[in-house]
Amino acid sequence: MSELRQDPVTGRWVIMSTGRAKRPHDIHVSDHKGDREFCPFCEGNEHTTPEEVFACRPEGSEPNTPGWQLRVVPNKYPALELHIGLQERRMGVFKSFSGVGMHEVFIEFPRHVSNWSEMDVESILRLVKAYKRRISAVQEDKRLVYALVFKNVGALAGASLEHSHSQLIATPMVPKRIREEMDHCEAHYEFNDRCLLCEMVEQELKMAERVVSLSDNFVVIAPYASRFPFELVLLPRSHLSHFEMTPSDVFPELAGMLHHMASMLDRCLGSPPYNLMLHNSPFTVGKLPFFHWHMEIIPRLTHVAGYEWGTGFYINQVMPREAARYLREAGEDVKNEMDSDAVSSLRCETEMKGVT
Amino acid sequence: MSELRQDPVTGRWVIMSTGRAKRPHDIHVSDHKGDREFCPFCEGNEHTTPEEVFACRPEGSEPNTPGWQLRVVPNKYPALELHIGLQERRMGVFKSFSGVGMHEVFIEFPRHVSNWSEMDVESILRLVKAYKRRISAVQEDKRLVYALVFKNVGALAGASLEHSHSQLIATPMVPKRIREEMDHCEAHYEFNDRCLLCEMVEQELKMAERVVSLSDNFVVIAPYASRFPFELVLLPRSHLSHFEMTPSDVFPELAGMLHHMASMLDRCLGSPPYNLMLHNSPFTVGKLPFFHWHMEIIPRLTHVAGYEWGTGFYINQVMPREAARYLREAGEDVKNEMDSDAVSSLRCETEMKGVT
Repeated sequence: MSELRQDPVTGRWVIMSTGRAKRPHDIHVSDHKGDREFCPFCEGNEHTTPEEVFACRPEGSEPNTPGWQLRVVPNKYPALELHIGLQERRMGVFKSFSGVGMHEVFIEFPRHVSNWSEMDVESILRLVKAYKRRISAVQEDKRLVYALVFKNVGALAGASLEHSHSQLIATPMVPKRIREEMDHCEAHYEFNDRCLLCEMVEQELKMAERVVSLSDNFVVIAPYASRFPFELVLLPRSHLSHFEMTPSDVFPELAGMLHHMASMLDRCLGSPPYNLMLHNSPFTVGKLPFFHWHMEIIPRLTHVAGYEWGTGFYINQVMPREAARYLREAGEDVKNEMDSDAVSSLRCETEMKGVT
Repeated sequence: MSELRQDPVTGRWVIMSTGRAKRPHDIHVSDHKGDREFCPFCEGNEHTTPEEVFACRPEGSEPNTPGWQLRVVPNKYPALELHIGLQERRMGVFKSFSGVGMHEVFIEFPRHVSNWSEMDVESILRLVKAYKRRISAVQEDKRLVYALVFKNVGALAGASLEHSHSQLIATPMVPKRIREEMDHCEAHYEFNDRCLLCEMVEQELKMAERVVSLSDNFVVIAPYASRFPFELVLLPRSHLSHFEMTPSDVFPELAGMLHHMASMLDRCLGSPPYNLMLHNSPFTVGKLPFFHWHMEIIPRLTHVAGYEWGTGFYINQVMPREAARYLREAGEDVKNEMDSDAVSSLRCETEMKGVT
């Protein structure tokens, strides 16, 4: 059974998930070499995963059988579990909770592909709708307050399997990073009466140099203080605190942007490993005027080293405006090659007035 | 020239260090393969580094010539530099400073070794004394407030060269991670009238299960809420806010503990890549009753993935008490093999009363 431990010196929580407990020499990182011989996420291998909690499959098709377009299953080795009581333990300066939470996997495509760039926009649309659906489903358990949706692509980005998948981990506490962002945004709102992220989007569109791609409702930016080379952030252009409140009619556009982004990274950086994280508002609060959902995307081209671990600061060798320029160029190439139907909702940033 | 940029959403600073500016396909991680053919840190190659600012060498020996035991040189590709003015720039929601700071490299040994375990205790003693000396030297520049000393071992831990070395980066702001730790420790002190880290040490010694090694003045622990498998923290057992205030007579003991720790990690985990970070108090404040210097050591056995990036929380598959047990066993083996002179100041944790 796992345990949520709080570090007394930083306040940070750590999930001790020892279901796959290891001796020193058993700790190793998957190289995905075995995945092409047998992959539990491929169509036909449904019996090797836990039973699906949600799926997109033809009417009348039996759960956990072939024929699906998307499956959501509990993680076989969950970091946290729902069917235990929430208990707090204290011992001197140390505090822990029993490992209550939810850990689900979105199997995004029936065929063995490793990235969104190999999928069609329709499949990504199914996926973002499934994100919304599962974030809403998690809210039924009143002990939980937050669901982080994330995606690891490539072994170097921590993906244990190659087959394209996302994950959702829901916890009884708001993550430290999200709390920090909310605190900064709230302080800004109190002083300026405006959402910081709305203001940032406005300024980025005006400056235009770090905008990577743009549609009617979404924008992808190489952030001003990017920690990593070619880091990206995707935001809705209008204020929206919760991902699950996003109007359904803009989801096709979002799916198109995500497909384009994955293809652009592949083209520009040679199919890099990357992590994608959805930063959403906690579901225990209503609409927030100061926080704005967004997705962070970090290509994993360099290794995090001692300075970063010691400080929480980062050293980045690529200026965001340079990264944006290279990515826009790659995006143009991709766009020229893509089926014009699939990208009809995309207007590329280079069409913007004032962009050179 | 580099630039310090603040992320408006998190408050985190990023050093944009574009001296080695790169095109997309130029970004790659060193595999150290070239290092054995030519290494700028080896004795005889002094002319290939910037001129030394400090060295341990025989009396009468010329700077930047062979014969040294330890050299400290400015980083050839510094993240930050001293000889520029500190200027603030603001543009809407964005804020930056010119890249003022200091970036030095400690070349720890004249021969091509990759880790402390291959060096003698005497050389590590020279090194920790040099840390103290350079941290004190940095304080002369009144624009600077903090110096982080850190060490990367292995390409996977971000070391760009194999030859055993440490670094010091001094900044005009206190790092986020240090500030967080200080805030937590100060809040604890206000409520409990005791240093949180002193209390933690006391509790760990009493519980004994996570103690890895112990000497008269220092202790190495597998922390309660370890983020990573086999993570370690080294602390002075008595309260001490500043590393540079450590009495000189305990440095030999510290050097012995560090040598033992590196050897133990090698033995237990097969010479893993790791990062070591010295968490010290800012030098702009006097003795602090609530903060306690310590070193964090994180073996890099797994890759950080989306959940960690998105939350600031961690998932760890090895219980700290298990890690401590494996490390103690490895430490015993190492101790039995080592020259008894070099470890005379070490009493191994397994000798402690009550430890099974």
